Amino acid sequence: MTIQIDEQSTGNVIEPVIGALRARLGDRVTTAAAVREQHGNTLTWLPIQPPDAVVFAENTQEIVDLVKLCAEHRVPIIAFGAGTSLEGHLNAPHGGISLDLTRMNKVLAVHREDMDCVVEAGVTRMQLNEHLRDTGLFFPLDPGADATMGGMAATRASGTNAVLYGTMRDFVINLTVVMADGSVVRTARRARKSAAGYDLTHLLVGSEGTLGIITELTVKLYGIPESIRSAICTFETIEGACDATITAIQLGLGLARCELLDEAQIEACNAHSKMDLRPVPTLFLEFHGTPVTTREQADMFAGIAADNGGSDFQWAERAEDRSKLWAARHEAYWAARTYRPGTQAIATDVCVPISRLAECVVETQKDIAETGLVGPIVGHIGDGNFHVLLLIDMDNAQQVMAAHDFLDRLVKRALAMDGTCTGEHGVGTGKMKYMKAEHGPGVEVMRAIKKALDPHNIFNPGKVV
Amino acid sequence: MTIQIDEQSTGNVIEPVIGALRARLGDRVTTAAAVREQHGNTLTWLPIQPPDAVVFAENTQEIVDLVKLCAEHRVPIIAFGAGTSLEGHLNAPHGGISLDLTRMNKVLAVHREDMDCVVEAGVTRMQLNEHLRDTGLFFPLDPGADATMGGMAATRASGTNAVLYGTMRDFVINLTVVMADGSVVRTARRARKSAAGYDLTHLLVGSEGTLGIITELTVKLYGIPESIRSAICTFETIEGACDATITAIQLGLGLARCELLDEAQIEACNAHSKMDLRPVPTLFLEFHGTPVTTREQADMFAGIAADNGGSDFQWAERAEDRSKLWAARHEAYWAARTYRPGTQAIATDVCVPISRLAECVVETQKDIAETGLVGPIVGHIGDGNFHVLLLIDMDNAQQVMAAHDFLDRLVKRALAMDGTCTGEHGVGTGKMKYMKAEHGPGVEVMRAIKKALDPHNIFNPGKVV
Repeated sequence: MTIQIDEQSTGNVIEPVIGALRARLGDRVTTAAAVREQHGNTLTWLPIQPPDAVVFAENTQEIVDLVKLCAEHRVPIIAFGAGTSLEGHLNAPHGGISLDLTRMNKVLAVHREDMDCVVEAGVTRMQLNEHLRDTGLFFPLDPGADATMGGMAATRASGTNAVLYGTMRDFVINLTVVMADGSVVRTARRARKSAAGYDLTHLLVGSEGTLGIITELTVKLYGIPESIRSAICTFETIEGACDATITAIQLGLGLARCELLDEAQIEACNAHSKMDLRPVPTLFLEFHGTPVTTREQADMFAGIAADNGGSDFQWAERAEDRSKLWAARHEAYWAARTYRPGTQAIATDVCVPISRLAECVVETQKDIAETGLVGPIVGHIGDGNFHVLLLIDMDNAQQVMAAHDFLDRLVKRALAMDGTCTGEHGVGTGKMKYMKAEHGPGVEVMRAIKKALDPHNIFNPGKVV
Repeated sequence: MTIQIDEQSTGNVIEPVIGALRARLGDRVTTAAAVREQHGNTLTWLPIQPPDAVVFAENTQEIVDLVKLCAEHRVPIIAFGAGTSLEGHLNAPHGGISLDLTRMNKVLAVHREDMDCVVEAGVTRMQLNEHLRDTGLFFPLDPGADATMGGMAATRASGTNAVLYGTMRDFVINLTVVMADGSVVRTARRARKSAAGYDLTHLLVGSEGTLGIITELTVKLYGIPESIRSAICTFETIEGACDATITAIQLGLGLARCELLDEAQIEACNAHSKMDLRPVPTLFLEFHGTPVTTREQADMFAGIAADNGGSDFQWAERAEDRSKLWAARHEAYWAARTYRPGTQAIATDVCVPISRLAECVVETQKDIAETGLVGPIVGHIGDGNFHVLLLIDMDNAQQVMAAHDFLDRLVKRALAMDGTCTGEHGVGTGKMKYMKAEHGPGVEVMRAIKKALDPHNIFNPGKVV
């Protein structure tokens, strides 16, 4: 089967829609160029494609009305959270409305005994953790940016401690979603598990705003660990670092974070933070548990590391000592960005089975070197996931071309290893061209679902499928 | 929106289909009454509805051909694994073909470093663990029955150690699925995480054979824990047992199993196994880790239990001592079944947020007593999930009616507590009537997906939606 998704153009139907929205929402509808541009693309090298208007919603009912209006007039709706996506998820190639959810930022309930909470989609993860401060609970997911909960669900976000706690796929218990016909669906109950029907929760998680608008979420929380122990350890080779990680996971060591910084990234951190780290592959680790268990984990890891060519193993338990150990990792993104002044940083990611990770990273390093690019690598290696931060002079057409070609090769390399074109950044428009290679006839299944649930293609058109 | 799912009747179109299948597959196609009846319903009190024929497939290509043939003639296909489902999943209300996958029972690959394996759908969990014996790895999921991997994925199975390892939802990395048009879709790559498109894996997990036929799976494995420590602990009240469990989970104790047997179940076990347990709510626990961590967990739990009215806390680490402690739990099902000779056991389950579990169990016990039924309760209480095993004299119409009414009240009680009508048994035909109450407009979304992916309603018609 081949499913055709309609491409609509908004043309002149947008004006009456904006008029109707203004009548209802007043100055929460704006067509100011600066606001539209800020909502039309962020943090990516894809050209900006601004929406026709930006609407700031305050509750689910307003979104129901907006969806019905836009469905009637075939006007695209692009849900907007913190604007930290990296693959053009927020571009408006067909114009339409950017639906800004950041004013829907209430924590609606915290259930201590159930270890979950109910939030509006615009709550950010840092805001949530601030809110939880006195409960002994926390929301562990940490994708770096202070993203919104709705945005993290829509993009299936992940980050540094997914190796222990899982990705947004694992955190979401249920979602409240406005569908294309204006119906409001709660995708599941608040029970921790269910075998009652199709898993709408996970269908919506990662759908990048193309199947419905997420307005509320129930997510799992965890107890703040009694003891957190951090460690760093250097390795002579990428293989050594990966092998140590694989062994630790096989032994059930319970790594909470396991981050690899490659030689180039360590050099960038040294330059940025006036540090003096040895420019070799380095693991940044964190163990969560009781003082007894984290001590045992750290000791065991030290032994495993030594067996795999690791050295300079250091650990710390006190908060300020932990911060010192992790300073380089926390600064990695900004260090890389300032490593070559005047360049733009192009962040990308792939994910492979962990047995292929060392090979994939080493081949990628060689590819970067041969292409003459600069691209430090940071990996969430417990998951087999790593980032390349290409530092590109965007005025140098040859370099831009070389970067494009490199990204193609990176994805092909990951796919050839039974990996994915993106472990956590998502598809947006940037990685649509790889969907067929990754999913084969599965793309047609996705398109059939899209067509069934959004027959007029109003939700984030031109993305994902 | 209201989506109409076509109901087809096979009528006389089945004969040419069976003829064509026989020409291709020979004696792997049977219409023998005994085989059809055995495939038309199992382990449930719903009346048997046998298929027109049973086909034993040996590879994915045979299933592709079968699906294309059946799609052309609009003949239903009902995938069959171990036949251990409990809600009429396997009934053939519209006749058609029961597709028996038990001969597709090869373990295709074990990836030790990645801690996953690739299996055909007919591999059973015990067969898999036998195969893994020398690898140091195991497949933890334990729903009781020796179900097939394909069947467990199709029904989103769970069981006694889901509280630590998760349910089948969490184990499945990817599926190979034959869709209604005969296309073969692999729902994901073997990477541990991905943000590349809609989550087809989780859409298929729990779809009960209504969206496609699962022919292969990649599933996560875990390292066999160095130390397993079992414990039992009695409580004066259900609330005490639940509160102790909640506290342990909040402290991140890492319970691997946490099973509640109520007073009636303990009495049944005493009668069945000539034991002499005190007939009070009893927790059966298991901790997985290193000798140090499981010792710490057991000690911590003993303290928590004491704070919640628990007593007689005993633990054991050696295998034979552990078996002794867990004997009653392992025998629970058979003990309950023989508790009232001459009765049939009707197993049902619901799942609620754990904060409501004690209330739900206690109200249910009261309901059982007031109705004059016998129904021991066993709960996977770390998940908020519990089973009632009603013991019914099926010749007593009044008792059967009372049981039906009780099951209705049980589901309503769970839904009122933001729970689900089934935590792990699934919908089949038995719980279809509760889907609207549980999911509201979400049922229409499910029906739209069903219609989009199986337009002629050939896959397990009359189930789930």
